[in-house]
Amino acid sequence: MTATSMLFSCSMHVGVSNPMMASKSSACCLSNRPSSHSKSISSCGQFGVSGKSKLLCRASALQVESAPSFSVGQKFQFDDVIEAQQFDRETLNAIFEVARSMENIRNNSSGSQMLKGYLMATLFYEPSTRTRLSFESAMRRLGGDVLTTENAREFSSAAKGETLEDTIRTVEGYSDIIVLRHFESGAARRAATTASIPVINAGDGPGQHPTQALLDIYTIEREIGKLDGIKVGLVGDLANGRTVRSLAYLLAKYHDVKIYFVSPNVVKMKDDIKEYLTSEGVEWEESSDLMEVASKCDVVYQTRIQKERFGDKINLYEEARGKYIVNQDVLKVMQNHAVVMHPLPRLDEIEVEVDSDPRAAYFRQAKNGLYIRMALLKVLLLGW
Amino acid sequence: MTATSMLFSCSMHVGVSNPMMASKSSACCLSNRPSSHSKSISSCGQFGVSGKSKLLCRASALQVESAPSFSVGQKFQFDDVIEAQQFDRETLNAIFEVARSMENIRNNSSGSQMLKGYLMATLFYEPSTRTRLSFESAMRRLGGDVLTTENAREFSSAAKGETLEDTIRTVEGYSDIIVLRHFESGAARRAATTASIPVINAGDGPGQHPTQALLDIYTIEREIGKLDGIKVGLVGDLANGRTVRSLAYLLAKYHDVKIYFVSPNVVKMKDDIKEYLTSEGVEWEESSDLMEVASKCDVVYQTRIQKERFGDKINLYEEARGKYIVNQDVLKVMQNHAVVMHPLPRLDEIEVEVDSDPRAAYFRQAKNGLYIRMALLKVLLLGW
Amino acid sequence: MTATSMLFSCSMHVGVSNPMMASKSSACCLSNRPSSHSKSISSCGQFGVSGKSKLLCRASALQVESAPSFSVGQKFQFDDVIEAQQFDRETLNAIFEVARSMENIRNNSSGSQMLKGYLMATLFYEPSTRTRLSFESAMRRLGGDVLTTENAREFSSAAKGETLEDTIRTVEGYSDIIVLRHFESGAARRAATTASIPVINAGDGPGQHPTQALLDIYTIEREIGKLDGIKVGLVGDLANGRTVRSLAYLLAKYHDVKIYFVSPNVVKMKDDIKEYLTSEGVEWEESSDLMEVASKCDVVYQTRIQKERFGDKINLYEEARGKYIVNQDVLKVMQNHAVVMHPLPRLDEIEVEVDSDPRAAYFRQAKNGLYIRMALLKVLLLGW
Repeated sequence: MTATSMLFSCSMHVGVSNPMMASKSSACCLSNRPSSHSKSISSCGQFGVSGKSKLLCRASALQVESAPSFSVGQKFQFDDVIEAQQFDRETLNAIFEVARSMENIRNNSSGSQMLKGYLMATLFYEPSTRTRLSFESAMRRLGGDVLTTENAREFSSAAKGETLEDTIRTVEGYSDIIVLRHFESGAARRAATTASIPVINAGDGPGQHPTQALLDIYTIEREIGKLDGIKVGLVGDLANGRTVRSLAYLLAKYHDVKIYFVSPNVVKMKDDIKEYLTSEGVEWEESSDLMEVASKCDVVYQTRIQKERFGDKINLYEEARGKYIVNQDVLKVMQNHAVVMHPLPRLDEIEVEVDSDPRAAYFRQAKNGLYIRMALLKVLLLGW
Repeated sequence: MTATSMLFSCSMHVGVSNPMMASKSSACCLSNRPSSHSKSISSCGQFGVSGKSKLLCRASALQVESAPSFSVGQKFQFDDVIEAQQFDRETLNAIFEVARSMENIRNNSSGSQMLKGYLMATLFYEPSTRTRLSFESAMRRLGGDVLTTENAREFSSAAKGETLEDTIRTVEGYSDIIVLRHFESGAARRAATTASIPVINAGDGPGQHPTQALLDIYTIEREIGKLDGIKVGLVGDLANGRTVRSLAYLLAKYHDVKIYFVSPNVVKMKDDIKEYLTSEGVEWEESSDLMEVASKCDVVYQTRIQKERFGDKINLYEEARGKYIVNQDVLKVMQNHAVVMHPLPRLDEIEVEVDSDPRAAYFRQAKNGLYIRMALLKVLLLGW
Repeated sequence: MTATSMLFSCSMHVGVSNPMMASKSSACCLSNRPSSHSKSISSCGQFGVSGKSKLLCRASALQVESAPSFSVGQKFQFDDVIEAQQFDRETLNAIFEVARSMENIRNNSSGSQMLKGYLMATLFYEPSTRTRLSFESAMRRLGGDVLTTENAREFSSAAKGETLEDTIRTVEGYSDIIVLRHFESGAARRAATTASIPVINAGDGPGQHPTQALLDIYTIEREIGKLDGIKVGLVGDLANGRTVRSLAYLLAKYHDVKIYFVSPNVVKMKDDIKEYLTSEGVEWEESSDLMEVASKCDVVYQTRIQKERFGDKINLYEEARGKYIVNQDVLKVMQNHAVVMHPLPRLDEIEVEVDSDPRAAYFRQAKNGLYIRMALLKVLLLGW
């Protein structure tokens, strides 16, 4: 699957209770099974007979809707979390509202028991301890329980040649929701198509990592207080970083956003995203002056230069790596309300001295991942 | 330990409350300590002082009893689950009855809390994610908790030369029940002899995998509605597959069973099982015609040809592998009530197109593993 | 860090509610922030905002206080468990009192729920299944929950070059307490300095393993009934074993203790500990006669000769290994009230025939690790 087709593929799971959404899905979907869809995930019981049915749709382009008012009564249905593109502005707002309520869940003697009796399987085909712990913490904070596989690639069955689909059909018998990390692009969609219980994509190779994209945009909203009208500087490895690509995509859903790309030449943002932003009316420019960009932006989103992508060309890597560093000098030109973000892990592209500045938002950003994942687990298992 | 001695060794743990069983144990056991045995596992507290005592018996052959009526009041005592041979027909019936009640445990707000406060240690010396997740799901579905080791072979202590017995004596201090997967035949029995808490064998090398055997026979009973008078085709790798060997052994406990062996010549069923079946009066025949066998059988039990057993002889493997495939053609000749089973993982010995046929029972079979394990955990920790 | 500096470094976290301790901390600490310290760990909520503040102090030597009476009302504050040296006699007593109450927690239908809603992260950079299971069992026995990393060294972030500090700042967002096992001496202190939630050192390379030291001294107190006036034989690898070094250190806090060192020449106790004992007025002697020592001692503390420390010199290892074995002959000369201890795993330095003797205390010792860790988790998360 090419980057372009990934960018524009869409997977919407909409409920019949939302006329606007339902009509949208009628328009773009090959098959529409609203009657079966009324057995939604909210009826997912302990033993995983969820009656999940899916409306998969694919369109050649996504229109950004003008923002209708969101009321709590409306239910945006989705059965799985597969890619950033499945969320429109209203769904994002609704998820953020739930995430914010998760921040308020406190240790009143025993924590929330909202998901008591539910079992999440973390099926990780490649290690990603940060993401795994974040999901498992989210599940446990809501009273749910966890089945863990730290390295499902050595899953004896996978090693013996079992297909992902067969593994999913086995694991769905043991759990109520599957969090899948896989090394192959598209694996999450295959899993979701097979599973009768919800699947969350926790990263599928070079493909998607939608919960990272959600926590990024949520963090901007939390830190800056708005998403319309903001200026965002994307810095570092823009060619290989799926987080900056997804973030750029999601930012296009908001009004009057301006994006600056600041990157070494070898890892510049690819044309597909630039063309998409242009088609969506989002202003963007490339710059080689981090200081100037930092002085204008609400968000400086720094990323790690990914050494593993350079192979033998170690000198190219070294050259790229040292080029744009966030340090005290950058902080000095940044506005008081602006923040520095980073998907982590960081090496030296943000100096440690920056950590103590209140504008260093990256550890708060990591923690927001917890709230976003709590929100998604809650919505997928219990509904809104 | 040779295959023959394994086949005919027996480990019965019988309670004094059952006169028939007790007398049987008197007859075949070298040591009979009914007085100490009254401190049974049901008194196993949170901190593992279970007062478990064991009646190990060894006989040169097992007689199949005629079936006395089973009443719920009778208590068949067993302290560990070590091998398929330890279960007689009545105990199997009793376990199946508990397993069936487990299917009814539903998500009434918070699931069952039957095993709340109990801690299961999954001590896996070789990876078997499917089996591990199944046990851990079973424990959690009953409200219990889990200590996990995904790869105890690298257990620092084992690497330093600690004996299995010492490891068991440490782990029993931390948990209430141990689920052991080991690479050595006989390891589970050694662990059970050492431990003062119950041990469940989750596979010990080429030895036993009794919970797989139990879920197989339970699945036949659930799918076909009976075990007496059935016809079962065992297909594929009958030489190396411990599941088909155990299944054949257990089927011999029922009346008027007929077994067909369908396998490539290089992996034919071994003589020990054939001789045992003959001695038990079970009719069996070998056939090379899968279609004819499939048309007659209630159960077509397909297995994977185990490549890892062929070593260098890759052409022998390839020849064996393609020989007997369950596909649409086989489905066409099968009776309506018949089912296809497989211990999983499968490669291409059952074609994917078969999955959507209601007679494809293998994923239901995997799920039955959950109920069987729930039942065993319940009985071992709480009694009947 | 040299062994000497480790030995004499001290980390005391004292509360203002204890005047004697507070004045001690004033005397030895560079910075004293009692006002901020009133926000102690006991206020640590589910989401880890603990307001932990630390009084780190370093002195060139520790005085052993004469023992003031300990009353339950006094609160000895500590925020982290980093090294054996941070505990004085009173704190040890207080911890042992809590540990003893943990032995009484029984399976009254559902076990203790004292730590319900709390989440412990076991961040293990090298495998140590025994220690990890012990901590995880402790947490679960108190109703708490666990996030596990069996091999954090392959933590994708660490592999990509993330610092321990950054990992800690991420993981503290997901949990309420961190149990850290690391391959580098001093790692636990670095983690504790970074974290705003409590950190327990579960072994940092050749550095410290304080919970092992605590369970050793607790076991002696439980088995012998006192710590003052006892005779202890430390046997085996005294050069490399951090457990015997820490134990010797802690024993110096008690009165009229006599220590015998019995070891092959190549692995003799190092001078730093001998000098420290002398400076503290503790009587010690070296002996090559295990039988004579065993006949006099209350505790024979045997250790494994660590093959991994000998490198190529395999003949030196073999010579050292067979020299001092605890067997029936040793048992015969030991007093009736005396015990054999061992930090485990053992190879053949204690013969298996010893296990059945009531004076074989090493498996009880392992179990005491559970109670000590339960006590520490309780105190760090809930206070005294």
